[in-house]
Amino acid sequence: MPAVMLPPAKKKIGRQTVEFHNPPVVAGTATTVGTLEGQGPLAPYFDRILTNDLYGEKTAEKAESRLLLETAQAAVEAAGIALSDIDVLLAGDLINQIVAANFAARELGRPFFGLYGACSTAAEGLLVGSMLIDGGFAQRVLACTSSHYHTAERQYRLPIEMNAQRKPTAQTTVTGSGAVVLANAGSGIRLTHGTIGRVVDLGVKDPSQMGAAMAPAASDTIACHLQDLGRRPGDYDLIVTGDLGSVGRDLALMRLGELGYDCSHNLNDCGVMVYGPEQNTKAGGSGCGCSAVVTYGYIFKQMAAGRWRRVLLVGTGALLNTLTYQQGETIPGIGHAVVFEAEGKEGEGDAVRR
Amino acid sequence: MPAVMLPPAKKKIGRQTVEFHNPPVVAGTATTVGTLEGQGPLAPYFDRILTNDLYGEKTAEKAESRLLLETAQAAVEAAGIALSDIDVLLAGDLINQIVAANFAARELGRPFFGLYGACSTAAEGLLVGSMLIDGGFAQRVLACTSSHYHTAERQYRLPIEMNAQRKPTAQTTVTGSGAVVLANAGSGIRLTHGTIGRVVDLGVKDPSQMGAAMAPAASDTIACHLQDLGRRPGDYDLIVTGDLGSVGRDLALMRLGELGYDCSHNLNDCGVMVYGPEQNTKAGGSGCGCSAVVTYGYIFKQMAAGRWRRVLLVGTGALLNTLTYQQGETIPGIGHAVVFEAEGKEGEGDAVRR
Repeated sequence: MPAVMLPPAKKKIGRQTVEFHNPPVVAGTATTVGTLEGQGPLAPYFDRILTNDLYGEKTAEKAESRLLLETAQAAVEAAGIALSDIDVLLAGDLINQIVAANFAARELGRPFFGLYGACSTAAEGLLVGSMLIDGGFAQRVLACTSSHYHTAERQYRLPIEMNAQRKPTAQTTVTGSGAVVLANAGSGIRLTHGTIGRVVDLGVKDPSQMGAAMAPAASDTIACHLQDLGRRPGDYDLIVTGDLGSVGRDLALMRLGELGYDCSHNLNDCGVMVYGPEQNTKAGGSGCGCSAVVTYGYIFKQMAAGRWRRVLLVGTGALLNTLTYQQGETIPGIGHAVVFEAEGKEGEGDAVRR
Repeated sequence: MPAVMLPPAKKKIGRQTVEFHNPPVVAGTATTVGTLEGQGPLAPYFDRILTNDLYGEKTAEKAESRLLLETAQAAVEAAGIALSDIDVLLAGDLINQIVAANFAARELGRPFFGLYGACSTAAEGLLVGSMLIDGGFAQRVLACTSSHYHTAERQYRLPIEMNAQRKPTAQTTVTGSGAVVLANAGSGIRLTHGTIGRVVDLGVKDPSQMGAAMAPAASDTIACHLQDLGRRPGDYDLIVTGDLGSVGRDLALMRLGELGYDCSHNLNDCGVMVYGPEQNTKAGGSGCGCSAVVTYGYIFKQMAAGRWRRVLLVGTGALLNTLTYQQGETIPGIGHAVVFEAEGKEGEGDAVRR
């Protein structure tokens, strides 16, 4: 049926996966988290922990934008470069019209693309950024996201002052920002492949059930990724979703099992990892910042230390707004996957030791 | 200061411009507009004109999503291909969390990246899409945007039923959607270069002055583009901003004059072009759909007819939300530029005839 026979897309594999011929390298990262996240099990891995989530600002929105800005600046510093060395800035967040990112981009002054993928935005930025670098359009890309408990709660749910009771399946928006500098050469963790998610909707209508809403998209992307590359779950030392929470993670595992992929030994979720069970965060963390701080803060450090050699990050987003579910719409989800590989020989990670 | 000497980004020219080595081709387009736009001077150029802006839906949000969906499907049909031939879908709109795009993406079922650049989203999609194609990641990309008078007015300003008086500098949100299929080969209009905008803010605080808020960003991008490529305004048959409206266009012309670029002979604005003076739309049109329908509907047809050979589209966005200006923030703007070239010999367009 195609009107014209086109040459193949050289870096596309299978249905939704792309391969980087010159895999982008992680040149620097930075993470900042809020007070609650700073009391969690991953606290030692974060670069900065706020002592006050309002961060000296008058409003939570201004605080979140500053969080993103300063984390971006810290990632540039960690990469040992100047801000002017950044060719393209990619950023997004959960506030209406991604204003936390927009106002930070104003201060950063670099060529800027705004992204929106809800909590999958960190993975979307990694994927788009890698394509810009591997495509020859940029030497260095700075990709950042943020979320803030106060901005998200009051925008999506109820005034924080109301202290409303939450359902056990609800997730807690992480206050935090993660930023990464990707470069077209150097040593360190490399991004070798990505799988671009499609929107999947199994009909969940309850916004307290975000994990359930996103689990089908996460499973769809993971299954497609494995199929496209002819890999098995065990080819990864870690498959990490971000952020399904405990309810969504269990549903994703079940769905992947139905699809013939047993990920029970090596799948975890950033929303589950970021808080301890004693922190009363219901089903775990969520928000654009969650998978960013867990990945750049914890996972990359574990990879650098040799614990994991090959990791699949699957950023997941719930694509609703406050009007849509009031208008009777369901909550569609999306998941974007990125493969990270640490330097070192094939077979040094957990995957092959098992 | 760079930590590592990196190989050059082969397709980057100057500060913010990229060059496509294998320029993506426009393989198909579709445009749909609302009733008011269908009474304007460009009506003969649009593919479909709604007879009822609610489009048979219960809410304006559902109507806008359907508008985007059906326009996207029409562009695929115009390209003579199947939906499954689309490798990546890029889409965005103005509704909180870009839900018009998200819900359309659910129906389209293709690998999807959500973008947010306010009214610059069409240009952002063209730029990112071209990079994915020229980078070897996709054969065909479908890029779409939409806006709807009803969804935008009630979200950003006042209930439509209030029929509030508007300032003469205010713009009217276009009800419309434009979609384009880009391909990695074929004949037709080609995208040869792009200039990625940076956020510029000269301190405008009045949301009825969007044109004034965006004009500095438009001028900044145009000046940078011309400088990066060593071109003069006269090298383009048309430089078209989208959407500054009449106030913003005049300010951009003035600012470009100060920067040494006289664009008074060949600069126009999609927001000015889309409505007639008798339509009482104040300073003209705006919204993600405006530059998309004017470009894909009118400009591309003029290029195909041989009137213009080389056109520079500068999509402009105002990066605010309803909270930011209430919190005392100014309104930053951004502009992304894309170069279109029609087939035919150098020197066939207006630019050289003048």
